[in-house]
Amino acid sequence: MEPWITSLITDTPQEGYELAIKLARMGVKYTQPDPDIRSKLRPVYENDADSLTLVSQVIAIHFQTVAAANNYWK
Amino acid sequence: MEPWITSLITDTPQEGYELAIKLARMGVKYTQPDPDIRSKLRPVYENDADSLTLVSQVIAIHFQTVAAANNYWK
Amino acid sequence: MEPWITSLITDTPQEGYELAIKLARMGVKYTQPDPDIRSKLRPVYENDADSLTLVSQVIAIHFQTVAAANNYWK
Amino acid sequence: MEPWITSLITDTPQEGYELAIKLARMGVKYTQPDPDIRSKLRPVYENDADSLTLVSQVIAIHFQTVAAANNYWK
Amino acid sequence: MEPWITSLITDTPQEGYELAIKLARMGVKYTQPDPDIRSKLRPVYENDADSLTLVSQVIAIHFQTVAAANNYWK
Amino acid sequence: MEPWITSLITDTPQEGYELAIKLARMGVKYTQPDPDIRSKLRPVYENDADSLTLVSQVIAIHFQTVAAANNYWK
Repeated sequence: MEPWITSLITDTPQEGYELAIKLARMGVKYTQPDPDIRSKLRPVYENDADSLTLVSQVIAIHFQTVAAANNYWK
Repeated sequence: MEPWITSLITDTPQEGYELAIKLARMGVKYTQPDPDIRSKLRPVYENDADSLTLVSQVIAIHFQTVAAANNYWK
Repeated sequence: MEPWITSLITDTPQEGYELAIKLARMGVKYTQPDPDIRSKLRPVYENDADSLTLVSQVIAIHFQTVAAANNYWK
Repeated sequence: MEPWITSLITDTPQEGYELAIKLARMGVKYTQPDPDIRSKLRPVYENDADSLTLVSQVIAIHFQTVAAANNYWK
Repeated sequence: MEPWITSLITDTPQEGYELAIKLARMGVKYTQPDPDIRSKLRPVYENDADSLTLVSQVIAIHFQTVAAANNYWK
Repeated sequence: MEPWITSLITDTPQEGYELAIKLARMGVKYTQPDPDIRSKLRPVYENDADSLTLVSQVIAIHFQTVAAANNYWK
């Protein structure tokens, strides 16, 4: 895997949230490296309420990590 | 994405809880940016007990983060 | 939403647990504000083992937050 | 609800684990207070692998709390 | 229940991980104490991808606890 | 089980993330040690959106642990 993250530190909470999204997506990418299959799966979870909630949950877990790393941007 | 969060600090626990709700919803919004599709999905999870519990779980995870950021409003 | 929480501090672990229950329920209430629909959904999850476990899980996550806020009532 | 917990402090990790089990079960009891219904649901989740794993997960979350409260019994 | 854990402290991360596995399994054992039923359920979750992921998740939660107890073996 | 982890410390966040992936996979490997069965299950979860999200969630939980162990690589 090419370099995709060098630091958990971000300037703002919003950038931290967007990093959490990236961290969540990378878990899928490492497990299913084929971009064609991921593209086929996208409309499945993008149109299912519970799938979207599950994705949001993974983001929430990563956001805990990123927020702690940034001392909650205080 | 336009700016939607600038700080995790809130005046009260209730505002912190409402920020956690926003954080949970933004995870869905980033993943499914189309407001029409999100509108269609809303009645699905709003009328399903387990879907609502799942949403409440994501809020709970974000509330941990927000509460820690605010030193539990002590 | 009217005020429903002013502090995470409780006198006892049991009151803290009951606050965690309230926090879990409010996640549902904010997402589905209609009390009639919530009433209809109640018998669904109240009679399903996995639904009850899921609810218990959300309570557990909030109880972590409340317990930390109270320094574990030590 | 009658008093059922007065402290998160236990003498040993095993007692702490058993307290975590109690905390997980109380989440169900508060949500479904009828002992007859809980008795009917018991054989459902006791004979389902995923249901048991879900229960074990709620215990794990509470065990985090209890272990932290006891400074990991160090 | 006979004594099965006396400490969260382990010599190595790997032993800590294996303790996390034990902690995850004990949640099932306490909830379903009958070894015959557990034996019947084993082939169910051992051959289901999502069931295995769920088990791995419970281990992950316990590993957080064990790792913190051991100050991350630093 | 042969030695597979000796430290939670990594040089970079990306190596830490990859360690989290390993930790998530080992939970499955310990529970289903047969490599043939794991190979058969792989195409199941690799082609299912929710299964992939679940895997990503386990990685996220382990990444919290690894990131804390490394003081967030600060």
